[in-house]
Amino acid sequence: MLSEQAKQAIAIARTIKQQQSDHLKPEQVKFLRADADKNTGIPIPESMTLNELTGEVKGEYYRLNDSQKDTVLLFLHGGAYTMGSVKSRRKLCFELLNRLNCDGFSVDYRQWPEARHPAAQEDVVAAYNFLREKYEHVLIFGESAGATLGLTLTLQLKQENGKLPDKIALFSPVITQINTVASEYLMQERDPMLLGAGEPVPYFDHPYAKDPLISPIYGDFTGFPPMMINCGSEEVKYDDSKILNYLCQKAGVDVTWDVWQDLFHVFVLFDMPETTRALDKIAKFLK
Amino acid sequence: MLSEQAKQAIAIARTIKQQQSDHLKPEQVKFLRADADKNTGIPIPESMTLNELTGEVKGEYYRLNDSQKDTVLLFLHGGAYTMGSVKSRRKLCFELLNRLNCDGFSVDYRQWPEARHPAAQEDVVAAYNFLREKYEHVLIFGESAGATLGLTLTLQLKQENGKLPDKIALFSPVITQINTVASEYLMQERDPMLLGAGEPVPYFDHPYAKDPLISPIYGDFTGFPPMMINCGSEEVKYDDSKILNYLCQKAGVDVTWDVWQDLFHVFVLFDMPETTRALDKIAKFLK
Repeated sequence: MLSEQAKQAIAIARTIKQQQSDHLKPEQVKFLRADADKNTGIPIPESMTLNELTGEVKGEYYRLNDSQKDTVLLFLHGGAYTMGSVKSRRKLCFELLNRLNCDGFSVDYRQWPEARHPAAQEDVVAAYNFLREKYEHVLIFGESAGATLGLTLTLQLKQENGKLPDKIALFSPVITQINTVASEYLMQERDPMLLGAGEPVPYFDHPYAKDPLISPIYGDFTGFPPMMINCGSEEVKYDDSKILNYLCQKAGVDVTWDVWQDLFHVFVLFDMPETTRALDKIAKFLK
Repeated sequence: MLSEQAKQAIAIARTIKQQQSDHLKPEQVKFLRADADKNTGIPIPESMTLNELTGEVKGEYYRLNDSQKDTVLLFLHGGAYTMGSVKSRRKLCFELLNRLNCDGFSVDYRQWPEARHPAAQEDVVAAYNFLREKYEHVLIFGESAGATLGLTLTLQLKQENGKLPDKIALFSPVITQINTVASEYLMQERDPMLLGAGEPVPYFDHPYAKDPLISPIYGDFTGFPPMMINCGSEEVKYDDSKILNYLCQKAGVDVTWDVWQDLFHVFVLFDMPETTRALDKIAKFLK
């Protein structure tokens, strides 16, 4: 049974759904990002040092005072390549870092309308390479579009014979930009947060391209590191997880797919007992 | 439980699957079509008159000697817009005509490699208009790509405020040319006939276009006549039927979706008790 907090979160998700539009205007984005940061950005705890990197490597670099020094978590926020932000995901990122007792880097990758594909991919690759030089183990956590970037990063590393991340944890991944899998339609009523079957995100000039670095559904996952996929049972993106799990199984990847009954897209952004349980399981997997 | 004949049909379907290729060469098509006709073309029964029409309206026009004269079945064969033929579907068409006791027209629409979209659509529209002038009631039966054409015909008629068909029966419809719905992946092992998740058919220059006359998944089905959808539970195209049923329900269409457990793509082309039952039900619906 869902917790009371989860039920409240679903009610909040419904208000997000009501505000959604298939045709976001560039001027709305700045407002949405600022609003997200205002409500959810949390200060850096005393146990942690923040370095804000700009330039080729962009993002917030969190170093725990007492962390194991050989491992880092590359954190990839979501937000449809448009309205996500590093600051608004701080709480989620810190929850993971505290459990993992390791350093973290949350990539401030470029998004629409300022940038277009492959800007985000380039920024994620740059951050990964930066961390790869410093740490023996690089773990990935990505949610929604951030999960897509976790996949496209690893697919690109594979193409270039780079060293792959050690483990990948994805929450509510999106593996096709086309939005025509069955759950995009059948979950439209049930998904409290997302409308479903909408236009492709504006960040891609060619969202229909059969390019694994745009839609990882076209990727070859052979040789991928252990992967954990989390999603809600009520997501319009449910089939994305279902297909990804299948593709990974088929490719021989050590993959686990955790479906959270009656829950929704990236519910870990909400403070509730289900989130605590999910984060505990994800941290256990990543360790 | 499946009949013995159905089990044999599944074994034959498996041999079809083995011969399949994602990249069909134009020179193979002629051979495949001739082979299909050789094995499955049946003569015209005495109770029926055949007129073979060429020109703008192309196809075989079957008139039953004792038919009710106000109704005609527009029959649309499948074959990925490539290797289907009118002759190879005669048996299936006659089975329906005998049950319905009405005239029929099986459209010999243009296919790849000789033609490209919208040639098939134009031919189906021409045949429909030809019949619409002669008959009070026009019923549609289409299988696989023919089912797609039944949908795209009706969507175009709606756009042009034309008179819609009276009823539409579809077998194993394909509603997106993109081949990335979940069943294209998850049914790959189970589908005895089709490989799944392949390249778009070569007939479309722009298979990824968000055009309802290419991929009816983008269509608005409001105002559609009563529709019956049949498919097998083991199809890589299963989600096409699932989504179509949803879109029709949502649009308020009088729709019935009949899933045939353990059966495969367009199994009605095979002679077996399940085919008899399916054709009986389809004829009952169309009457």
